[in-house]
Amino acid sequence: MNKLTDEIRIIPVLDIPLIKEKDDLAKIISERINLEDNDIVVICETVVSKSQGRVIDTKKINPGELAKEISKKTGKDPRLVQLILDESKEVLKIGDTVIVVETKDGNICASAGIDVSNVCGDESIVGLLPKEPDQEARKIRLELKKLTGKEVAVIISDTQGRPFRSGAIGVAIGVSGMKPLWKRAGEKDLYGYELKSSKIATADEAASAASLLMGQANEGIPAVIIRGSKYQKGEGSSKELLREKEKDLFRC
Amino acid sequence: MNKLTDEIRIIPVLDIPLIKEKDDLAKIISERINLEDNDIVVICETVVSKSQGRVIDTKKINPGELAKEISKKTGKDPRLVQLILDESKEVLKIGDTVIVVETKDGNICASAGIDVSNVCGDESIVGLLPKEPDQEARKIRLELKKLTGKEVAVIISDTQGRPFRSGAIGVAIGVSGMKPLWKRAGEKDLYGYELKSSKIATADEAASAASLLMGQANEGIPAVIIRGSKYQKGEGSSKELLREKEKDLFRC
Repeated sequence: MNKLTDEIRIIPVLDIPLIKEKDDLAKIISERINLEDNDIVVICETVVSKSQGRVIDTKKINPGELAKEISKKTGKDPRLVQLILDESKEVLKIGDTVIVVETKDGNICASAGIDVSNVCGDESIVGLLPKEPDQEARKIRLELKKLTGKEVAVIISDTQGRPFRSGAIGVAIGVSGMKPLWKRAGEKDLYGYELKSSKIATADEAASAASLLMGQANEGIPAVIIRGSKYQKGEGSSKELLREKEKDLFRC
Repeated sequence: MNKLTDEIRIIPVLDIPLIKEKDDLAKIISERINLEDNDIVVICETVVSKSQGRVIDTKKINPGELAKEISKKTGKDPRLVQLILDESKEVLKIGDTVIVVETKDGNICASAGIDVSNVCGDESIVGLLPKEPDQEARKIRLELKKLTGKEVAVIISDTQGRPFRSGAIGVAIGVSGMKPLWKRAGEKDLYGYELKSSKIATADEAASAASLLMGQANEGIPAVIIRGSKYQKGEGSSKELLREKEKDLFRC
């Protein structure tokens, strides 16, 4: 039968308090779980944003004409729409209730990833996506190394919708300490056949695995450890996970 | 510190032999691992296809004019192109080396999901996607119940590319015993705020989690068990994971 060492374990970091501005996430995590070398620490973007103080009272936003126009189409508060525009490089689609944009960081998602749930319970107070998520992941990784002596990878995850398929899934929007793409071309398969182009988005798969445990409602698990999963070490950047528009054959 | 019961475990089913036509996957899996109630059994589509005999010698295919034309553009063997066309409802994009299609089952993927790697080592012998993957997942689930008495969910997984983001990830192309989408609207968040529209593709996240362990080269792990992951029971169908084209605001 299987040994525990063959397995991957997805371990919750329990009893994380509600996070506020300037909280030290690395310290909070390291006090609650014994890290091991090669763990992947997945942290939900919501708490990273809060620790960065990226929580905004939309009542203080002054919406422009475009925001008012999009507000009429979508039924969204014009101040929230203005905030979505401020966080975006380009508006890609406007639906009856949804605004799909490309964020300044290059993520394509609804409402520029701005959260209302799990921010503070007041619908006018929203959480933006974290600022410079790769640098933030790196900062947390180095701090964890200092506190625990362990070499880990850090992923900042978000839950995003996607084309073609219903439902949102966990994806990596910040990465440090691992290569987010695992290029397997040149390796052999079970029959000795050489793989031509296999490229796996390991960091996105890890974010999805973590999301199974984190949940989206009142689970209160904003950080999980993935232990025993193989990955390629390296500084890495979430930008490697973004396709260039011109080369994106899957855009239809 | 955390108890094992808080965790999700991704457990490989070890020592699965090379699968051939008419092999009984449920029997092979149940002989190699002790299943528990509520396990999710994730099986890679490659072995399901092989057990169904969906392995084709492209040398026997007679390519038509369209296949020959697309072959010139992509450098792909015209017989393989003909097979891709035969498996597809619509060709969506033709690139320098890639053909993106909608399969007859509604999956949008490169080369209609036809595999060359891990089929038999001969480049002219390819594996098609499984036939009726939901029914096949159901058949395996009921057979596992008969053999072990355990109530599990079964996912047939594939590794697919996607728009906007580089690298392929595991997705669910066949589902039985679970609702592939977990609709969380109406639930409360940590602050008591009621979620408006949160819908998570749990089956796709589980397929991605399994993919971390399965790998794409010579790992030889075509089936894994996900234990301890919450999901909603129900017959379920992978079709729920496919967005209607007209309502797909993420298509850009």
